Amino acid sequence: MRYELYYWPTIQGRGEFIRLALEEAGADYVDIVRKPDSEGGGVPAMFDLLTGDDVAHPPFAPPILKAGKRVIAQTSIILMFLGDRHKLAPTSEDGRLWTHQLQLTIDDFLVEAHDVHHPLAKSFYYEDQRKEARRRAENFRSERAPKFFGYMERVLNQNQSGGKHLVGARLTYADLSLFQIVEGMRYAFPKLMAQLEPDYPLVTALHARVAERPRIKAYAASDQRIPFNTDGIFRYYKELDS
Amino acid sequence: MRYELYYWPTIQGRGEFIRLALEEAGADYVDIVRKPDSEGGGVPAMFDLLTGDDVAHPPFAPPILKAGKRVIAQTSIILMFLGDRHKLAPTSEDGRLWTHQLQLTIDDFLVEAHDVHHPLAKSFYYEDQRKEARRRAENFRSERAPKFFGYMERVLNQNQSGGKHLVGARLTYADLSLFQIVEGMRYAFPKLMAQLEPDYPLVTALHARVAERPRIKAYAASDQRIPFNTDGIFRYYKELDS
Repeated sequence: MRYELYYWPTIQGRGEFIRLALEEAGADYVDIVRKPDSEGGGVPAMFDLLTGDDVAHPPFAPPILKAGKRVIAQTSIILMFLGDRHKLAPTSEDGRLWTHQLQLTIDDFLVEAHDVHHPLAKSFYYEDQRKEARRRAENFRSERAPKFFGYMERVLNQNQSGGKHLVGARLTYADLSLFQIVEGMRYAFPKLMAQLEPDYPLVTALHARVAERPRIKAYAASDQRIPFNTDGIFRYYKELDS
Repeated sequence: MRYELYYWPTIQGRGEFIRLALEEAGADYVDIVRKPDSEGGGVPAMFDLLTGDDVAHPPFAPPILKAGKRVIAQTSIILMFLGDRHKLAPTSEDGRLWTHQLQLTIDDFLVEAHDVHHPLAKSFYYEDQRKEARRRAENFRSERAPKFFGYMERVLNQNQSGGKHLVGARLTYADLSLFQIVEGMRYAFPKLMAQLEPDYPLVTALHARVAERPRIKAYAASDQRIPFNTDGIFRYYKELDS
Protein backbone atom coordinates (compact mmCIF):
# COMPACT_ATOMS: atom_id res chain seq x y z
CA MET A 1 0.00 0.00 0.00
CA ARG A 2 1.21 3.48 -0.86
CA TYR A 3 0.78 6.05 1.90
CA GLU A 4 -0.25 9.58 1.08
CA LEU A 5 1.20 12.40 3.18
CA TYR A 6 -0.53 15.80 3.17
CA TYR A 7 1.51 18.67 4.52
CA TRP A 8 2.68 22.17 3.61
CA PRO A 9 5.02 21.78 0.64
CA THR A 10 7.72 24.36 1.42
CA ILE A 11 8.64 23.66 5.04
CA GLN A 12 9.85 20.74 7.14
CA GLY A 13 7.50 21.60 10.00
CA ARG A 14 5.55 18.82 11.66
CA GLY A 15 5.45 16.87 8.40
CA GLU A 16 9.17 16.17 8.71
CA PHE A 17 8.65 13.88 11.68
CA ILE A 18 6.39 11.74 9.49
CA ARG A 19 8.78 11.90 6.53
CA LEU A 20 11.68 10.70 8.69
CA ALA A 21 9.68 7.71 9.93
CA LEU A 22 8.54 6.83 6.41
CA GLU A 23 12.09 7.16 5.08
CA GLU A 24 13.65 5.06 7.86
CA ALA A 25 10.97 2.40 7.27
CA GLY A 26 11.65 2.41 3.53
CA ALA A 27 7.89 2.81 3.13
CA ASP A 28 6.21 3.60 -0.17
CA TYR A 29 4.68 7.09 0.09
CA VAL A 30 3.76 10.15 -1.91
CA ASP A 31 4.18 13.66 -0.57
CA ILE A 32 0.95 14.73 -2.23
CA VAL A 33 1.04 18.51 -1.82
CA ARG A 34 4.50 18.71 -3.39
CA LYS A 35 3.15 17.26 -6.61
CA PRO A 36 1.63 19.59 -9.21
CA ASP A 37 -2.10 20.38 -9.07
CA SER A 38 -2.43 18.77 -12.51
CA GLU A 39 -1.40 15.44 -10.97
CA GLY A 40 -3.87 15.69 -8.09
CA GLY A 41 -1.34 17.44 -5.85
CA GLY A 42 -0.88 20.98 -4.56
CA VAL A 43 -2.42 22.71 -1.60
CA PRO A 44 -5.99 22.26 -2.99
CA ALA A 45 -5.66 18.48 -2.48
CA MET A 46 -4.92 19.12 1.20
CA PHE A 47 -7.81 21.55 1.57
CA ASP A 48 -10.17 18.95 0.13
CA LEU A 49 -9.27 16.72 3.06
CA LEU A 50 -9.48 19.55 5.59
CA THR A 51 -12.84 20.86 4.48
CA GLY A 52 -14.62 17.97 2.78
CA ASP A 53 -17.92 17.03 4.36
CA ASP A 54 -17.53 13.45 3.12
CA VAL A 55 -14.46 12.82 5.33
CA ALA A 56 -15.51 10.51 8.16
CA HIS A 57 -12.77 11.73 10.50
CA PRO A 58 -12.11 15.33 9.49
CA PRO A 59 -8.64 16.54 10.52
CA PHE A 60 -8.21 19.86 12.33
CA ALA A 61 -4.82 20.57 10.73
CA PRO A 62 -1.99 18.96 8.75
CA PRO A 63 0.03 16.74 8.76
CA ILE A 64 -2.46 14.15 7.57
CA LEU A 65 -1.71 10.58 6.54
CA LYS A 66 -3.92 8.59 4.23
CA ALA A 67 -3.43 4.85 4.59
CA GLY A 68 -5.93 3.17 2.31
CA LYS A 69 -9.29 4.55 3.38
CA ARG A 70 -8.02 5.79 6.71
CA VAL A 71 -7.40 9.47 7.26
CA ILE A 72 -5.25 10.14 10.34
CA ALA A 73 -4.10 13.48 11.74
CA GLN A 74 -1.97 14.62 14.69
CA THR A 75 1.76 13.97 14.27
CA SER A 76 2.09 11.74 17.31
CA ILE A 77 -0.84 9.51 16.30
CA ILE A 78 0.44 9.11 12.75
CA LEU A 79 3.79 8.08 14.23
CA MET A 80 2.17 5.59 16.61
CA PHE A 81 0.29 4.12 13.64
CA LEU A 82 3.45 3.88 11.50
CA GLY A 83 5.49 2.64 14.46
CA ASP A 84 3.18 -0.37 14.84
CA ARG A 85 3.33 -1.23 11.17
CA HIS A 86 7.03 -0.69 10.50
CA LYS A 87 8.69 -1.88 13.70
CA LEU A 88 9.53 1.62 14.81
CA ALA A 89 8.11 1.02 18.28
CA PRO A 90 7.89 -1.87 20.75
CA THR A 91 4.90 -4.21 20.42
CA SER A 92 4.02 -4.36 24.15
CA GLU A 93 1.32 -1.96 25.36
CA ASP A 94 3.72 -0.59 27.92
CA GLY A 95 6.46 0.09 25.36
CA ARG A 96 4.05 1.52 22.80
CA LEU A 97 2.56 4.00 25.27
CA TRP A 98 5.97 5.03 26.60
CA THR A 99 7.24 5.75 23.08
CA HIS A 100 4.06 7.71 22.38
CA GLN A 101 4.46 9.62 25.66
CA LEU A 102 7.96 10.71 24.68
CA GLN A 103 6.69 11.80 21.27
CA LEU A 104 3.98 13.93 22.88
CA THR A 105 6.60 15.61 25.05
CA ILE A 106 8.57 16.32 21.86
CA ASP A 107 5.40 17.71 20.25
CA ASP A 108 4.86 20.00 23.23
CA PHE A 109 8.40 21.32 22.93
CA LEU A 110 7.80 21.95 19.25
CA VAL A 111 4.90 24.28 20.10
CA GLU A 112 7.26 26.22 22.35
CA ALA A 113 9.97 26.36 19.66
CA HIS A 114 7.34 27.84 17.32
CA ASP A 115 5.85 30.28 19.79
CA VAL A 116 9.28 31.76 20.50
CA HIS A 117 8.98 33.67 17.25
CA HIS A 118 5.18 33.97 17.37
CA PRO A 119 4.28 34.70 20.99
CA LEU A 120 1.19 36.78 20.21
CA ALA A 121 -0.47 34.97 17.31
CA LYS A 122 0.30 32.61 14.44
CA SER A 123 -1.44 34.99 12.11
CA PHE A 124 0.60 38.12 12.92
CA TYR A 125 3.88 38.73 11.09
CA TYR A 126 7.08 38.11 13.01
CA GLU A 127 7.97 41.76 12.47
CA ASP A 128 4.86 42.76 14.43
CA GLN A 129 5.84 40.74 17.50
CA ARG A 130 9.59 41.06 17.41
CA LYS A 131 9.98 42.76 20.77
CA GLU A 132 7.75 40.20 22.47
CA ALA A 133 9.63 37.39 20.72
CA ARG A 134 12.88 38.60 22.25
CA ARG A 135 11.40 38.41 25.73
CA ARG A 136 9.98 34.96 25.13
CA ALA A 137 13.26 33.78 23.58
CA GLU A 138 15.22 34.78 26.68
CA ASN A 139 13.06 32.52 28.80
CA PHE A 140 13.11 29.77 26.17
CA ARG A 141 16.91 29.77 26.08
CA SER A 142 17.48 29.93 29.83
CA GLU A 143 14.66 27.68 31.07
CA ARG A 144 12.62 25.79 28.54
CA ALA A 145 15.27 24.38 26.19
CA PRO A 146 17.55 23.21 29.03
CA LYS A 147 14.56 21.64 30.78
CA PHE A 148 13.61 19.71 27.64
CA PHE A 149 17.11 18.48 26.80
CA GLY A 150 17.81 17.70 30.45
CA TYR A 151 14.72 15.52 30.51
CA MET A 152 15.68 13.64 27.35
CA GLU A 153 19.22 13.13 28.67
CA ARG A 154 17.73 11.71 31.85
CA VAL A 155 15.48 9.32 29.91
CA LEU A 156 18.51 8.05 27.95
CA ASN A 157 20.52 7.78 31.14
CA GLN A 158 17.80 5.83 32.98
CA ASN A 159 17.10 3.47 30.08
CA GLN A 160 18.01 0.11 31.55
CA SER A 161 18.84 -1.25 28.09
CA GLY A 162 21.61 1.34 27.74
CA GLY A 163 21.63 4.98 26.71
CA LYS A 164 21.71 4.50 22.95
CA HIS A 165 17.96 4.77 22.44
CA LEU A 166 15.11 6.49 24.23
CA VAL A 167 13.10 3.26 24.47
CA GLY A 168 14.63 -0.16 25.03
CA ALA A 169 17.53 -1.37 22.89
CA ARG A 170 16.20 -0.56 19.42
CA LEU A 171 15.49 2.47 17.30
CA THR A 172 11.99 3.94 17.61
CA TYR A 173 10.29 6.89 15.96
CA ALA A 174 10.94 8.83 19.18
CA ASP A 175 14.69 8.63 18.42
CA LEU A 176 14.07 9.95 14.91
CA SER A 177 12.00 12.79 16.35
CA LEU A 178 14.65 13.75 18.90
CA PHE A 179 17.17 13.77 16.05
CA GLN A 180 14.91 16.21 14.21
CA ILE A 181 14.60 18.48 17.27
CA VAL A 182 18.39 18.70 17.52
CA GLU A 183 18.54 19.47 13.78
CA GLY A 184 15.98 22.22 14.10
CA MET A 185 17.50 23.72 17.22
CA ARG A 186 20.96 23.78 15.65
CA TYR A 187 19.52 25.71 12.74
CA ALA A 188 17.43 28.14 14.80
CA PHE A 189 19.66 28.56 17.86
CA PRO A 190 23.26 27.78 16.82
CA LYS A 191 24.82 29.81 19.62
CA LEU A 192 22.57 28.36 22.28
CA MET A 193 23.11 24.79 21.09
CA ALA A 194 26.89 25.21 21.03
CA GLN A 195 26.61 26.12 24.72
CA LEU A 196 24.08 23.46 25.68
CA GLU A 197 25.21 20.35 23.84
CA PRO A 198 28.22 19.51 26.03
CA ASP A 199 25.76 19.14 28.92
CA TYR A 200 23.72 16.55 27.04
CA PRO A 201 26.20 14.02 25.64
CA LEU A 202 23.70 11.17 25.26
CA VAL A 203 21.28 13.34 23.30
CA THR A 204 24.09 14.56 21.05
CA ALA A 205 25.39 11.02 20.48
CA LEU A 206 21.91 9.79 19.63
CA HIS A 207 21.58 12.57 17.06
CA ALA A 208 24.90 11.56 15.48
CA ARG A 209 23.93 7.89 15.31
CA VAL A 210 20.58 8.61 13.68
CA ALA A 211 22.32 10.88 11.14
CA GLU A 212 24.50 7.93 10.12
CA ARG A 213 21.66 5.52 9.45
CA PRO A 214 21.87 4.77 5.72
CA ARG A 215 18.31 5.72 4.79
CA ILE A 216 18.30 8.88 6.91
CA LYS A 217 21.70 9.88 5.55
CA ALA A 218 20.60 9.38 1.96
CA TYR A 219 17.36 11.26 2.56
CA ALA A 220 19.09 14.18 4.31
CA ALA A 221 21.49 14.55 1.37
CA SER A 222 18.71 14.44 -1.23
CA ASP A 223 16.54 17.15 -2.74
CA GLN A 224 13.58 15.57 -0.97
CA ARG A 225 14.71 17.10 2.32
CA ILE A 226 13.42 20.69 2.27
CA PRO A 227 16.02 23.04 3.78
CA PHE A 228 15.13 24.83 7.01
CA ASN A 229 13.85 28.36 6.37
CA THR A 230 12.09 31.24 8.09
CA ASP A 231 8.62 30.00 7.15
CA GLY A 232 8.87 26.84 9.24
CA ILE A 233 8.53 25.98 12.91
CA PHE A 234 12.24 26.35 13.61
CA ARG A 235 13.36 29.78 12.40
CA TYR A 236 16.71 31.45 12.60
CA TYR A 237 16.48 35.06 13.74
CA LYS A 238 19.84 36.15 15.04
CA GLU A 239 18.36 38.39 17.73
CA LEU A 240 16.49 35.45 19.29
CA ASP A 241 19.71 33.46 19.68
CA SER A 242 21.69 36.01 21.63
CA MET B 1 -7.18 -1.75 41.71
CA ARG B 2 -7.08 1.75 43.11
CA TYR B 3 -5.66 4.35 40.73
CA GLU B 4 -3.43 7.11 42.02
CA LEU B 5 -3.68 10.53 40.38
CA TYR B 6 -0.84 13.00 40.83
CA TYR B 7 -1.64 16.60 39.97
CA TRP B 8 -1.47 20.10 41.42
CA PRO B 9 -3.89 20.19 44.35
CA THR B 10 -5.43 23.65 44.03
CA ILE B 11 -6.45 23.88 40.37
CA GLN B 12 -8.58 21.95 37.89
CA GLY B 13 -5.99 22.27 35.13
CA ARG B 14 -5.14 19.23 33.04
CA GLY B 15 -5.85 16.94 35.98
CA GLU B 16 -9.56 17.72 35.68
CA PHE B 17 -9.84 15.83 32.38
CA ILE B 18 -8.58 12.74 34.19
CA ARG B 19 -10.82 13.32 37.21
CA LEU B 20 -13.89 13.60 34.97
CA ALA B 21 -13.10 10.29 33.26
CA LEU B 22 -12.46 8.55 36.59
CA GLU B 23 -15.68 9.98 38.05
CA GLU B 24 -17.81 9.00 35.05
CA ALA B 25 -16.32 5.50 35.17
CA GLY B 26 -17.06 5.21 38.89
CA ALA B 27 -13.42 4.15 39.25
CA ASP B 28 -11.66 3.80 42.57
CA TYR B 29 -8.97 6.48 42.78
CA VAL B 30 -7.03 8.67 45.18
CA ASP B 31 -6.10 12.24 44.37
CA ILE B 32 -2.73 11.81 46.08
CA VAL B 33 -1.45 15.38 46.20
CA ARG B 34 -4.64 16.60 47.88
CA LYS B 35 -3.98 14.29 50.83
CA PRO B 36 -1.79 15.51 53.70
CA ASP B 37 1.97 14.89 53.57
CA SER B 38 1.60 12.80 56.71
CA GLU B 39 -0.54 10.33 54.74
CA GLY B 40 1.91 10.09 51.85
CA GLY B 41 0.27 12.94 49.94
CA GLY B 42 1.16 16.53 49.21
CA VAL B 43 3.32 18.00 46.49
CA PRO B 44 6.43 16.07 47.72
CA ALA B 45 4.78 12.80 46.68
CA MET B 46 4.42 14.18 43.14
CA PHE B 47 8.00 15.42 43.05
CA ASP B 48 9.22 11.97 44.02
CA LEU B 49 7.65 10.65 40.84
CA LEU B 50 8.93 13.54 38.73
CA THR B 51 12.51 13.38 39.92
CA GLY B 52 13.07 9.83 41.18
CA ASP B 53 15.82 7.96 39.36
CA ASP B 54 14.12 4.65 40.08
CA VAL B 55 11.10 5.50 37.91
CA ALA B 56 11.30 3.40 34.74
CA HIS B 57 9.25 5.86 32.68
CA PRO B 58 9.94 9.27 34.20
CA PRO B 59 7.19 11.80 33.46
CA PHE B 60 8.03 15.27 32.14
CA ALA B 61 5.11 16.93 33.92
CA PRO B 62 1.84 16.18 35.71
CA PRO B 63 -0.86 14.90 35.46
CA ILE B 64 0.48 11.43 36.19
CA LEU B 65 -1.56 8.27 36.73
CA LYS B 66 -0.28 5.29 38.66
CA ALA B 67 -2.09 2.08 37.78
CA GLY B 68 -0.45 -0.71 39.74
CA LYS B 69 3.21 -0.51 38.77
CA ARG B 70 2.57 1.58 35.71
CA VAL B 71 3.35 5.28 35.69
CA ILE B 72 1.69 7.12 32.81
CA ALA B 73 1.88 10.81 31.92
CA GLN B 74 0.39 13.07 29.23
CA THR B 75 -3.33 13.77 29.65
CA SER B 76 -4.36 12.28 26.33
CA ILE B 77 -2.48 9.01 26.93
CA ILE B 78 -3.91 8.60 30.42
CA LEU B 79 -7.36 9.10 28.90
CA MET B 80 -6.70 6.55 26.15
CA PHE B 81 -5.56 4.10 28.81
CA LEU B 82 -8.66 4.72 30.98
CA GLY B 83 -10.92 4.75 27.93
CA ASP B 84 -9.88 1.20 27.07
CA ARG B 85 -10.42 -0.09 30.60
CA HIS B 86 -13.68 1.67 31.42
CA LYS B 87 -15.58 1.65 28.12
CA LEU B 88 -15.06 5.34 27.56
CA ALA B 89 -13.85 4.76 23.99
CA PRO B 90 -14.64 2.38 21.13
CA THR B 91 -12.73 -0.91 21.03
CA SER B 92 -11.84 -0.83 17.32
CA GLU B 93 -8.41 0.56 16.40
CA ASP B 94 -10.08 3.07 14.13
CA GLY B 95 -12.46 4.33 16.81
CA ARG B 96 -9.78 4.40 19.50
CA LEU B 97 -7.42 6.49 17.36
CA TRP B 98 -10.17 8.87 16.30
CA THR B 99 -11.19 9.49 19.92
CA HIS B 100 -7.54 10.03 20.80
CA GLN B 101 -7.12 12.41 17.85
CA LEU B 102 -10.00 14.55 19.07
CA GLN B 103 -8.52 14.60 22.56
CA LEU B 104 -5.17 15.80 21.19
CA THR B 105 -6.95 18.60 19.37
CA ILE B 106 -8.60 19.53 22.67
CA ASP B 107 -5.19 19.43 24.38
CA ASP B 108 -3.76 21.75 21.73
CA PHE B 109 -6.58 24.21 22.34
CA LEU B 110 -5.90 24.05 26.06
CA VAL B 111 -2.33 25.26 25.46
CA GLU B 112 -3.76 28.22 23.57
CA ALA B 113 -6.29 28.94 26.33
CA HIS B 114 -3.38 29.02 28.78
CA ASP B 115 -1.02 31.07 26.65
CA VAL B 116 -3.66 33.79 26.26
CA HIS B 117 -2.75 34.96 29.75
CA HIS B 118 0.90 33.88 29.54
CA PRO B 119 2.08 34.74 26.03
CA LEU B 120 5.70 35.41 27.02
CA ALA B 121 6.49 32.71 29.57
CA LYS B 122 4.83 30.42 32.10
CA SER B 123 7.28 31.64 34.73
CA PHE B 124 6.54 35.39 34.43
CA TYR B 125 3.67 36.87 36.40
CA TYR B 126 0.53 37.76 34.50
CA GLU B 127 1.01 41.35 35.59
CA ASP B 128 4.32 41.41 33.70
CA GLN B 129 2.75 40.34 30.39
CA ARG B 130 -0.63 42.00 30.66
CA LYS B 131 -0.27 44.18 27.57
CA GLU B 132 0.91 41.26 25.47
CA ALA B 133 -1.92 39.12 26.84
CA ARG B 134 -4.45 41.66 25.59
CA ARG B 135 -3.06 41.43 22.08
CA ARG B 136 -3.01 37.66 22.13
CA ALA B 137 -6.53 37.55 23.59
CA GLU B 138 -7.91 39.62 20.75
CA ASN B 139 -6.67 37.04 18.26
CA PHE B 140 -7.80 34.16 20.46
CA ARG B 141 -11.33 35.55 20.66
CA SER B 142 -11.70 36.44 17.00
CA GLU B 143 -9.86 33.52 15.36
CA ARG B 144 -8.71 30.65 17.52
CA ALA B 145 -11.75 30.01 19.73
CA PRO B 146 -14.24 30.17 16.81
CA LYS B 147 -11.98 27.88 14.77
CA PHE B 148 -11.89 25.31 17.57
CA PHE B 149 -15.61 25.34 18.32
CA GLY B 150 -16.44 25.41 14.62
CA TYR B 151 -14.37 22.27 14.17
CA MET B 152 -16.03 20.44 17.06
CA GLU B 153 -19.47 21.46 15.78
CA ARG B 154 -18.54 20.07 12.39
CA VAL B 155 -17.36 16.77 13.90
CA LEU B 156 -20.68 16.43 15.74
CA ASN B 157 -22.56 17.37 12.61
CA GLN B 158 -20.73 14.86 10.44
CA ASN B 159 -21.00 12.00 12.94
CA GLN B 160 -23.04 9.45 11.03
CA SER B 161 -24.41 8.02 14.28
CA GLY B 162 -26.04 11.37 15.06
CA GLY B 163 -24.76 14.57 16.60
CA LYS B 164 -25.12 13.62 20.26
CA HIS B 165 -21.55 12.42 20.70
CA LEU B 166 -18.21 13.22 19.10
CA VAL B 167 -17.52 9.55 18.34
CA GLY B 168 -20.18 7.03 17.34
CA ALA B 169 -23.37 6.67 19.35
CA ARG B 170 -21.94 6.44 22.86
CA LEU B 171 -20.22 8.66 25.39
CA THR B 172 -16.41 8.77 25.20
CA TYR B 173 -13.79 10.63 27.21
CA ALA B 174 -13.62 13.12 24.32
CA ASP B 175 -17.20 14.18 25.14
CA LEU B 176 -16.24 14.67 28.79
CA SER B 177 -13.23 16.75 27.72
CA LEU B 178 -15.27 18.95 25.40
CA PHE B 179 -17.69 19.49 28.29
CA GLN B 180 -14.73 20.64 30.40
CA ILE B 181 -13.53 23.04 27.69
CA VAL B 182 -16.98 24.67 27.58
CA GLU B 183 -16.96 24.90 31.39
CA GLY B 184 -13.53 26.53 31.38
CA MET B 185 -14.33 28.91 28.56
CA ARG B 186 -17.57 30.02 30.22
CA TYR B 187 -15.60 30.84 33.33
CA ALA B 188 -12.70 32.60 31.59
CA PHE B 189 -14.55 34.25 28.69
CA PRO B 190 -18.20 34.69 29.71
CA LYS B 191 -18.83 37.55 27.27
CA LEU B 192 -17.21 35.75 24.37
CA MET B 193 -19.05 32.50 25.05
CA ALA B 194 -22.40 34.26 25.28
CA GLN B 195 -21.73 35.54 21.77
CA LEU B 196 -20.31 32.30 20.35
CA GLU B 197 -22.54 29.60 21.76
CA PRO B 198 -25.60 30.24 19.56
CA ASP B 199 -23.36 29.41 16.58
CA TYR B 200 -22.46 26.00 18.00
CA PRO B 201 -25.73 24.40 19.11
CA LEU B 202 -24.47 20.81 18.99
CA VAL B 203 -21.46 21.62 21.19
CA THR B 204 -23.70 23.45 23.65
CA ALA B 205 -26.22 20.61 23.74
CA LEU B 206 -23.46 18.07 24.32
CA HIS B 207 -22.20 20.13 27.25
CA ALA B 208 -25.70 20.20 28.75
CA ARG B 209 -26.15 16.45 28.35
CA VAL B 210 -22.82 15.64 30.00
CA ALA B 211 -23.67 18.01 32.86
CA GLU B 212 -26.81 15.95 33.53
CA ARG B 213 -25.07 12.58 33.75
CA PRO B 214 -25.65 11.43 37.34
CA ARG B 215 -21.99 10.88 38.31
CA ILE B 216 -20.78 14.09 36.67
CA LYS B 217 -23.62 16.04 38.24
CA ALA B 218 -22.86 14.67 41.70
CA TYR B 219 -19.14 15.32 41.29
CA ALA B 220 -19.64 18.87 40.02
CA ALA B 221 -21.83 19.66 43.04
CA SER B 222 -19.35 18.17 45.51
CA ASP B 223 -16.36 19.66 47.34
CA GLN B 224 -14.16 17.38 45.28
CA ARG B 225 -14.57 19.67 42.28
CA ILE B 226 -12.04 22.49 42.80
CA PRO B 227 -13.57 25.82 41.72
CA PHE B 228 -12.00 27.61 38.75
CA ASN B 229 -9.54 30.27 39.86
CA THR B 230 -6.79 32.55 38.53
CA ASP B 231 -4.04 30.03 39.18
CA GLY B 232 -5.36 27.50 36.68
CA ILE B 233 -5.27 27.10 32.91
CA PHE B 234 -8.57 28.90 32.36
CA ARG B 235 -8.39 32.28 34.08
CA TYR B 236 -10.88 35.09 34.22
CA TYR B 237 -9.33 38.48 33.60
CA LYS B 238 -12.01 40.92 32.57
CA GLU B 239 -9.72 42.79 30.19
CA LEU B 240 -9.04 39.62 28.15
CA ASP B 241 -12.75 39.02 27.60
CA SER B 242 -13.64 42.38 26.10
